[in-house]
Amino acid sequence: MSKKNMDKLLIFALGGVGEIGKNMYVVQYANDIVVIDCGLKFPEEEMLGIDIVIPDISYLTENRDKVRGIIITHGHEDHIGGLPYVLKYLNVPVYGTKLTLGLIETKLKEAGLLGETKRYLINAESELKLGTMKATFFKTNHSIPDSVGVCLETPEGNVVHTGDFKFDHTPVNDQYADLHQMAAIGAKGVLALLSDSTNAERPGFTPSEKSVGVQLEEIFRKAKQRVIIATFASNIHRIQQVIDAASATRRKMTVIGRSMVNVVTIASELGYLNIPDGMLIEPEEINKLAADRVVVLSTGSQGEPMSALTRMARSSHRKVDIMPGDTVIIAATPIPGNERYVGRTVDELFRIGANVIYGPGSVTGVHVSGHGSQEELKLMLNLIRPKYFIPIHGEYRMLRQHGLLAEAVGIEKENIFIIDIGDTVEIQDGAARKGQKVPSGNTLIDGLGVGDVGNIVLRDRKLLSQDGILVVVVTLSKEDGSILSGPDIISRGFVYVRESEGLLDEANRIVTNTLNKLMVENVNEWASLKTHVKDALGRFLYEQTRRRPMILPIIMEV
Amino acid sequence: MSKKNMDKLLIFALGGVGEIGKNMYVVQYANDIVVIDCGLKFPEEEMLGIDIVIPDISYLTENRDKVRGIIITHGHEDHIGGLPYVLKYLNVPVYGTKLTLGLIETKLKEAGLLGETKRYLINAESELKLGTMKATFFKTNHSIPDSVGVCLETPEGNVVHTGDFKFDHTPVNDQYADLHQMAAIGAKGVLALLSDSTNAERPGFTPSEKSVGVQLEEIFRKAKQRVIIATFASNIHRIQQVIDAASATRRKMTVIGRSMVNVVTIASELGYLNIPDGMLIEPEEINKLAADRVVVLSTGSQGEPMSALTRMARSSHRKVDIMPGDTVIIAATPIPGNERYVGRTVDELFRIGANVIYGPGSVTGVHVSGHGSQEELKLMLNLIRPKYFIPIHGEYRMLRQHGLLAEAVGIEKENIFIIDIGDTVEIQDGAARKGQKVPSGNTLIDGLGVGDVGNIVLRDRKLLSQDGILVVVVTLSKEDGSILSGPDIISRGFVYVRESEGLLDEANRIVTNTLNKLMVENVNEWASLKTHVKDALGRFLYEQTRRRPMILPIIMEV
Repeated sequence: MSKKNMDKLLIFALGGVGEIGKNMYVVQYANDIVVIDCGLKFPEEEMLGIDIVIPDISYLTENRDKVRGIIITHGHEDHIGGLPYVLKYLNVPVYGTKLTLGLIETKLKEAGLLGETKRYLINAESELKLGTMKATFFKTNHSIPDSVGVCLETPEGNVVHTGDFKFDHTPVNDQYADLHQMAAIGAKGVLALLSDSTNAERPGFTPSEKSVGVQLEEIFRKAKQRVIIATFASNIHRIQQVIDAASATRRKMTVIGRSMVNVVTIASELGYLNIPDGMLIEPEEINKLAADRVVVLSTGSQGEPMSALTRMARSSHRKVDIMPGDTVIIAATPIPGNERYVGRTVDELFRIGANVIYGPGSVTGVHVSGHGSQEELKLMLNLIRPKYFIPIHGEYRMLRQHGLLAEAVGIEKENIFIIDIGDTVEIQDGAARKGQKVPSGNTLIDGLGVGDVGNIVLRDRKLLSQDGILVVVVTLSKEDGSILSGPDIISRGFVYVRESEGLLDEANRIVTNTLNKLMVENVNEWASLKTHVKDALGRFLYEQTRRRPMILPIIMEV
Repeated sequence: MSKKNMDKLLIFALGGVGEIGKNMYVVQYANDIVVIDCGLKFPEEEMLGIDIVIPDISYLTENRDKVRGIIITHGHEDHIGGLPYVLKYLNVPVYGTKLTLGLIETKLKEAGLLGETKRYLINAESELKLGTMKATFFKTNHSIPDSVGVCLETPEGNVVHTGDFKFDHTPVNDQYADLHQMAAIGAKGVLALLSDSTNAERPGFTPSEKSVGVQLEEIFRKAKQRVIIATFASNIHRIQQVIDAASATRRKMTVIGRSMVNVVTIASELGYLNIPDGMLIEPEEINKLAADRVVVLSTGSQGEPMSALTRMARSSHRKVDIMPGDTVIIAATPIPGNERYVGRTVDELFRIGANVIYGPGSVTGVHVSGHGSQEELKLMLNLIRPKYFIPIHGEYRMLRQHGLLAEAVGIEKENIFIIDIGDTVEIQDGAARKGQKVPSGNTLIDGLGVGDVGNIVLRDRKLLSQDGILVVVVTLSKEDGSILSGPDIISRGFVYVRESEGLLDEANRIVTNTLNKLMVENVNEWASLKTHVKDALGRFLYEQTRRRPMILPIIMEV
C-alpha cells in the first residue's frame, strides 16, 4: 500500500452542530486543512456575564502549519463573528465574496487585525488551490447578498458545503441561486454533502423575500404618519425593499442605530444598495417633513435593550420621537430567548399610541426566513445527490429531522452522519466511518478575556445570582483564639441589612458561639475554623430562610 | 344628596393586567370588597433567585374589614397559587367549585392553613350574598374542569368577570359553556365586563379539546412500542383523553411525576376522571407488559429540569427508561421562556432513539389552547353586551388587541379601559372614569421570605451574576495607618485565581500603593480609604479585563 493510500479525508465541525451559531467546519485531507466559516454565538442563559462564545480552536492551533485558509460563506455574525478572536491565534488567509469581505474588514479594523490578515476576494467563478484540495463556489439565496456554497475537490472525492440557503425564485437584487451549477456539481458525483438544517422542522417552502416588499408598500401607502421599521441590519435585500417602498410612496428615509448605519454605508459603497438621490436624510431633518413623507429604518427588531427602537419606544432616543398614530413595523421573528424583549418593546410602543405591526411573518407578511424549509432541503439533496450526508447548522433535533428528509429522498440511512462538535467523519477509499474525536467546545469571551472564564467561575456566578453572598469577618487572638473583633457580617444579594437586623444579629451569635466552642475544644487550624463557621451559619440560614447564600468567612489573627 | 349616592363602584386589578399570571381582581362597592382570584406568577429573568411572585395586597390588608371573600374562577396556579401566602395575612372566606376547592385544599394543607380557612363550595347555580353585592356564576370551557365566570350584582349595576375561557362546542366530559346563562346575563344589562385577553392576538377560533383525542388515538395505535406522553398536570380533559386512547388501543397506563400523581388522585376521587378498572398500573409493573401495551403519563411538558420527562430523557429516572423506538408526545406549547428547555429535552429524547412528537399544536394536533381566540372573544362581548369593557389576563399588547376587538363589535372607544395594576375604574351614577391609584406591585417570594427581597438585593444579585465579586482584606496599624497584613484578595465569580495570578498580584500592588499614598497624605477615615481602594482597583480591573466585579474592601485596624 502506497503512502498515498494511507491518507484519508476528515470532516468535522468545531461549531454549528447541536447548536445554533458559532459555525465552523473543517475538511482535512492528509496535511491540508480547510476551514469553512468562523462564527460566534450568543451565550446561553447559564453562561452568566459572558459576552459571546466562539469555538475552541485548539485542534487548528495545534495543526497551524496545515491550515490553508478560512473560507467564509456569507457575512452573518454566526459565520464571521469569531474571526477577530480566532485570527489572533491563527494567522491564516481568509476568503470571501465582496460584501462578505467588506463586513469582515470592518470587524478586523476594529480589532486592529486588518493589516496582518491576508484577505482574498472570491466570486462564484473563483477556483482556489488549497494544498491538495481545490475549492469552487456556487451562488445561493439567503437573507444577505453574496452568499455562496462551497465545493471542495479532494483526492478522496468532492465535499459540498451549502452555507445558509433557501431557494428564492424571485429574489431581490437578481441574486439567483445557481441551480445549474448545483446540478453540474451533483452530476459529477459528490462524496459528501454538508447542508443547512435551520428550518428542517418546517414543512413546505419558505416564501420569497419579494413577498415582503409587496406588503411593505401597502403598509407605507396606508400609513397616515411616519413609518418606523426595524429589521436585521444585515438583511440588505429587506433594506432595499424598504427603500423601494419609500420611493414608491414618496417618503424619504433616515437610518438610525449603529449597526444599521454601518451596513447601509458598506452596502451602498460596495454597490449592494440602490438608493435614489435625495432619498436619505439625516435624523435631524425628519421634523421638517410632513409625517407621511418619512420612513425611519432602525435597529432593534429583537427588542435589544440598548437598540434604537427600544430607546424610541421608551421615548429616550436623542433624535427620533414616536408620535401617537405613527406606524411601527417589526420585520423580524424573535430569536428564541428574545420573545420577552420584543414583547416589552411592542407594549411600550402601544402605550405611546403607535400602530404596531408585529408577530409571526406568516401573519404579518413583513418577514420571511432566510433558510429553506423541508421541500427546499429535499431539492438541495436531489440536486447534489451525495453519497454521504452530514446535516449541519442546527440543534440536534433539527439535524435529526434533516436526516429523516435525506432518508426520504433515498440516501442510505447508514450514510447519514449526525455529528456533535468534535466528532469526525473519516473517509478512506470511498468508505466513511466515525473517527476519533478532536478537541472541541465553547471558548467564552467576557470583556477582554478569551477563555479565562471556566466552569468554576460560572458556578460561582450562578450561586451568587441565586442567593447572594455573606462575608463574615472576625479577628482572633493569636494567643488564645478568643475573638478580638467581630464577627461582622456583610450581605450582598442575600438580604437587605436594614430590614433583616434580627436575622443577622442571630447569625452573629451563631458565629460567635461556634468560634467560642472551637476555642474551648482547642481547634485552631484556619481551614477547620472556616468550615465550622460556614456549616453552622449555612445550616441556620437555610432553616430560617430556605436560602443558601455563598458564605465567605475571613478570619484574621493578631 | 343622600349618603347612598356618594357611594361608588371601584374596579381594579392587583395582578393579571400588563402581565401573564398572578391574577387578582377587586370589585369594591362602598364598604364591601370582593376579590376574584389569587394567583402567582413565575419570576421574570431579572428577578434572580426569586421562586415566585404574588400580588402586593397592601390595599386589601389595609381594608381587611371590608373584604367579604375571595372567589376563585378555576384551579390553575395563576389563579390559586397566591392563596397560601395571601391567606396568612388576610384570613377571609374562599369560594370555589368542587375541583377548584379540591386543588386549593391540597395547597392549604401543605401550608398549614387548612384549619383556619373558611371554604365554601359553589356551583353554577349558587348565589352568594357578599355585603351589598350578590354573586352568581356561569359555566365556561377551559383547559381544566369546573371553571366559571362571575356576575357580581352591585347597587351600581352588574359586573361580569369571565375567568379564563374558550368556547368548545364539543367539550370533553360534557362540560358545556353555559351560553344561555351568558345570554340571560347580557339581556339583563351589564355595566362592566372583565374578559380574558390571553389569545387576543390570535385570529379565528381555538380548536376543540376533542380534536386532540382523535389524534392521540391514532398515534397510540401506530406506535409499535411504549407511548410516553407529557402534558400539563392540571389538564384533566387531556388526561381523560389519554385514558380513553389507552383504553381504545388496549394499553395500560402508569402515572409519574409528583404533580401528575397528585392531580390524577384528586380528580379521580372527586369524580372528574373516568378510569376503567385495571387501567392504572404502578411504574414498576410496566416491564411486565409488552411495550405496545403501555402508556406513561408524565409531567415535564415544559422541559422543566427536574421533571419526570427530563429525567427520563437523561436516562436518570429511577423507574422508567425510554427505549429506542418508543414514542414520546409533548402535548403542550412551551410557555414563553421555556422554549430552550423543551428543545433540550427533545434533543435528548432523539439522542436515545425515541420518536418525538413535538412542536406547535397546529402542526402536531396533540395540543390546543384553553383560551378563546379573537372570534370567541367577540362572541363573549356580543353575548354580554357591556357598557364598559376592561380587558384582563394579558400583557399590555394583548389587552390593547382585545380593546380593538371590542371597538369592532361596537363598544364605544371611551368606554374601554386598558388598565395597569393599581389603576382604578370608578363608576358612579352610571358614569365611569379613571380614579385614584391604589398600592400595587410584585411581592417576591424567595425561600421562606415574602417580600424581603427588594430592588437593592436584586441589583446586587445582577451585578454578582455578571462579573462576580472581589473581597479585599487588609489590616492597618491604628497608630500610623501602615499595612500590617494583606492586602489579601479573594475572587468569587470574577476570575479563577490559579489562572489569573499575574492580574491579582498586580491588583494587590494597586491596593498597597493606594493605601500607602493615603497614609502619607494622612487620609484615615475608613469610608474614604474604602472608596479610594474601590475606585483604584475598579479602574485597573476594567482597563485590564473590561469587567466590573463588585469590590468589597474590608479594612481592619489593630
